[in-house]
Amino acid sequence: MSIAPVTHLIGWFLVVFGLAMFFPAVVDWVASNPDWFVFVTSGSATVFFGMAALLATRRKSLVLNLRQGFLLTTGSWIMLALFGAIPFAYSDQLPLDYTDAFFETMSGLTTTGSTVITGLDHAPPGILLWRALLQWFGGIGIIVAAVALFPQLKVGGMQLFRMESSDRSERAFAQVRRYTAALVITYFILTVFCTLFLRLAGMTGFEAIVHAMTTLSTGGYSTSDASIGHFSNHSIHWIITTFMLMGGMPFVIYIQMVRRGPRAFYRDTQIRGYLAFLAIAICCIASWLWWKDNFPFSQAIREAAFNVVSVVTTTGYATTDYSRWGTLPFGLFFLLIFVGGCTGSTGGGIKIFRYQILWTALRQYVWSRIYPHGVRPMTYGGRPVSADVVMGVLVFILTFLVTVAVTSMALEALGLDLVTALSGAVTAVANVGPGLGDVIGPAGNFATLPDSAKWVLSAAMLLGRLEFLTVLVLFAPAFWRG
Amino acid sequence: MSIAPVTHLIGWFLVVFGLAMFFPAVVDWVASNPDWFVFVTSGSATVFFGMAALLATRRKSLVLNLRQGFLLTTGSWIMLALFGAIPFAYSDQLPLDYTDAFFETMSGLTTTGSTVITGLDHAPPGILLWRALLQWFGGIGIIVAAVALFPQLKVGGMQLFRMESSDRSERAFAQVRRYTAALVITYFILTVFCTLFLRLAGMTGFEAIVHAMTTLSTGGYSTSDASIGHFSNHSIHWIITTFMLMGGMPFVIYIQMVRRGPRAFYRDTQIRGYLAFLAIAICCIASWLWWKDNFPFSQAIREAAFNVVSVVTTTGYATTDYSRWGTLPFGLFFLLIFVGGCTGSTGGGIKIFRYQILWTALRQYVWSRIYPHGVRPMTYGGRPVSADVVMGVLVFILTFLVTVAVTSMALEALGLDLVTALSGAVTAVANVGPGLGDVIGPAGNFATLPDSAKWVLSAAMLLGRLEFLTVLVLFAPAFWRG
Repeated sequence: MSIAPVTHLIGWFLVVFGLAMFFPAVVDWVASNPDWFVFVTSGSATVFFGMAALLATRRKSLVLNLRQGFLLTTGSWIMLALFGAIPFAYSDQLPLDYTDAFFETMSGLTTTGSTVITGLDHAPPGILLWRALLQWFGGIGIIVAAVALFPQLKVGGMQLFRMESSDRSERAFAQVRRYTAALVITYFILTVFCTLFLRLAGMTGFEAIVHAMTTLSTGGYSTSDASIGHFSNHSIHWIITTFMLMGGMPFVIYIQMVRRGPRAFYRDTQIRGYLAFLAIAICCIASWLWWKDNFPFSQAIREAAFNVVSVVTTTGYATTDYSRWGTLPFGLFFLLIFVGGCTGSTGGGIKIFRYQILWTALRQYVWSRIYPHGVRPMTYGGRPVSADVVMGVLVFILTFLVTVAVTSMALEALGLDLVTALSGAVTAVANVGPGLGDVIGPAGNFATLPDSAKWVLSAAMLLGRLEFLTVLVLFAPAFWRG
Repeated sequence: MSIAPVTHLIGWFLVVFGLAMFFPAVVDWVASNPDWFVFVTSGSATVFFGMAALLATRRKSLVLNLRQGFLLTTGSWIMLALFGAIPFAYSDQLPLDYTDAFFETMSGLTTTGSTVITGLDHAPPGILLWRALLQWFGGIGIIVAAVALFPQLKVGGMQLFRMESSDRSERAFAQVRRYTAALVITYFILTVFCTLFLRLAGMTGFEAIVHAMTTLSTGGYSTSDASIGHFSNHSIHWIITTFMLMGGMPFVIYIQMVRRGPRAFYRDTQIRGYLAFLAIAICCIASWLWWKDNFPFSQAIREAAFNVVSVVTTTGYATTDYSRWGTLPFGLFFLLIFVGGCTGSTGGGIKIFRYQILWTALRQYVWSRIYPHGVRPMTYGGRPVSADVVMGVLVFILTFLVTVAVTSMALEALGLDLVTALSGAVTAVANVGPGLGDVIGPAGNFATLPDSAKWVLSAAMLLGRLEFLTVLVLFAPAFWRG
């Protein structure tokens, strides 16, 4: 296997990534913050390494084979995390060592949003912008990977979402490139709209840009330790709820809506399931808040909607410490972490379509116990569902759960209590952000965890973000054999 | 579908079950306890209803079709629980209403071992014996169902364990009857041995009989509120550990060992996995107890072995409140609940062979991502594993987890806290017994839960014991259609 095309593409990513570091440099320079020099240096170094990789591997064709596709996915996330951590580690304004810096960067690039930084309200603007940019890049990265790469790699049942003419020809490559361009433009336009709305609703321009980037990427980094609870403005809550909701939907649908009208939206099986599920969950929690906790009706709806959408889309913003709402909301929020957004969105977790396939497969399985000789084809959204897709979905869900179990065991062995370890493992694997309990809950922070726990959690975030198999396949001896 | 053969078999079960109620009657009569009359009345009523069912449905052939097999399994457990609860409800010595009585009976028949009775140390002997008999019947019932019925119904991948010539002919039926007889005899002999050893180690005759019945059935009902912690005798701990271990192994293996010698034992893939897993888990916990909690070496091994075997075999005895041992043991015990014994044993849970199939399927899946056009057959213990078996195993594991999630949500909606609800759901579905936390932990009791929670938990125990699909299939409209 030649790694040249992989190195070449990662080289491109590093150049773009390094150039992006000049944005925080400018912001810090304007704010007369000495960090601008750290960003200029880190950016230059990153561009330099990227250029070196590009020059060492000049290529005519960028069509990847299967194994190169796997290597590219994992390789690019790790390389970007290694370089993206440099500004955090070298900034004089933050007491972070490289472990903390890597954790913060990986949490950003995987759009998880767990943070080790305290005192965000007084943090230098360059650092805040860089955190937002990490999530913004991580968001578009996973959208493109989910549309262009995962269906080809056939991981987690994603072959269900192969594009019409997706074979390994140059024509398919051209189609993927067109789609990628359209996705990047859509993502950019939506971010601009979100920024405008937030600015109009009363945020400063800087806050609006940062929150637009971390909302649409369902990342959840904020400019305040109190997260969105810092803003008491109801319009801001509703705007963020709406754009988190949009971030959790497949971005391809926005392109299809432009091309074919709103019907594409209403007909999408996954989106219908996603909206129906959210409506039910919000009603449950809002009813509880209204009846049991005596919230006024409008507040019950607003708080329920914001926090349910935040957890299901795996954003991880909070307006309040919802773990104090009562037994049912507490338990429901724990389960909501396991749901996740739609596939092809910036959301993490198990994702809606896998639950839909699971339900279809379960009904089919029960049916075939009753009619052992009957034959009935399975479909999803009008497409036939092959046994390999069902298998992929089941393996995905179980790998998710096993990863959570193994991660939480590792964290417990490092001395964390059950609630912190378990919720920390789930929140990392599902790329949500905050956990439960006093240490890492909605009101908490990951700074006090031991270094080893931060590395374990970083690995868990990467595994979850890249749908497990993409990373795990690299550990199979067969992968490296001729 | 004719329900006559199902009614006929359940009639037989009721007659045997009603006659069994005369044992506690005799014990209570000898102890001059007025409960003897309750047992005589309940027993007579049960025998009467059983006879009525028998007379109403005289049959020549008892060969069941697929749907009748499903109906028999769920029907017999529910009918026996309904009748078995009568003595608890009408005993003047216990403050139990019918909800409590049904919970206690279902917990017994499913060999779960969760109890609502406090003051066991002073409870009348008839009640203690009846609880033990419920678990003993539940144990042999599930062994026979797992060998004779589940492989035919093809639930949870159990078709892997079909006997050589298992078709729906009279010859196959005769073979099943021979096997059933051999299993009952084996079960009885092992119970006698366990009783003898416990008696010789220092228990009273009555304690020895009760504990032998609840050990081998991996049920876990004891004669003391302190469970086995009541006995400070180390030999008793080791004897119970050994017989729990045996209860968690496939009982067919004991027959095969008599026939073919000990090789059958060492060659069984499931037993090897079971023993290897237990050895690792015991070493982990024992090392922690030795290093972190400063236990003497022999005590660390003994306590780790007893409690690990108790949880993995889903017995649920405790010698101590292991939730105080530290973060790693606490987390590990929570995960151990998800393991379960071997299939064809009295143990509940997900079971060893399903993890082995899962691991094989996962490796196969990763391999096929790397070689999309390769073909490699899957095997387990030398037998080929069909796609339907893999599907059955995956569906089983996910149904297990979904049932746990739904049950814990229901319990939270009824006001239980997260730890009680979640561990209560797991312990019921896996048929273990005690949960975690202050209410239902190893030192706790289910009496204080609301009535509705007891019904939810009873349903969860039944679902888990009968491997979910056997019960759920009855809710499919297709089941009742021509």
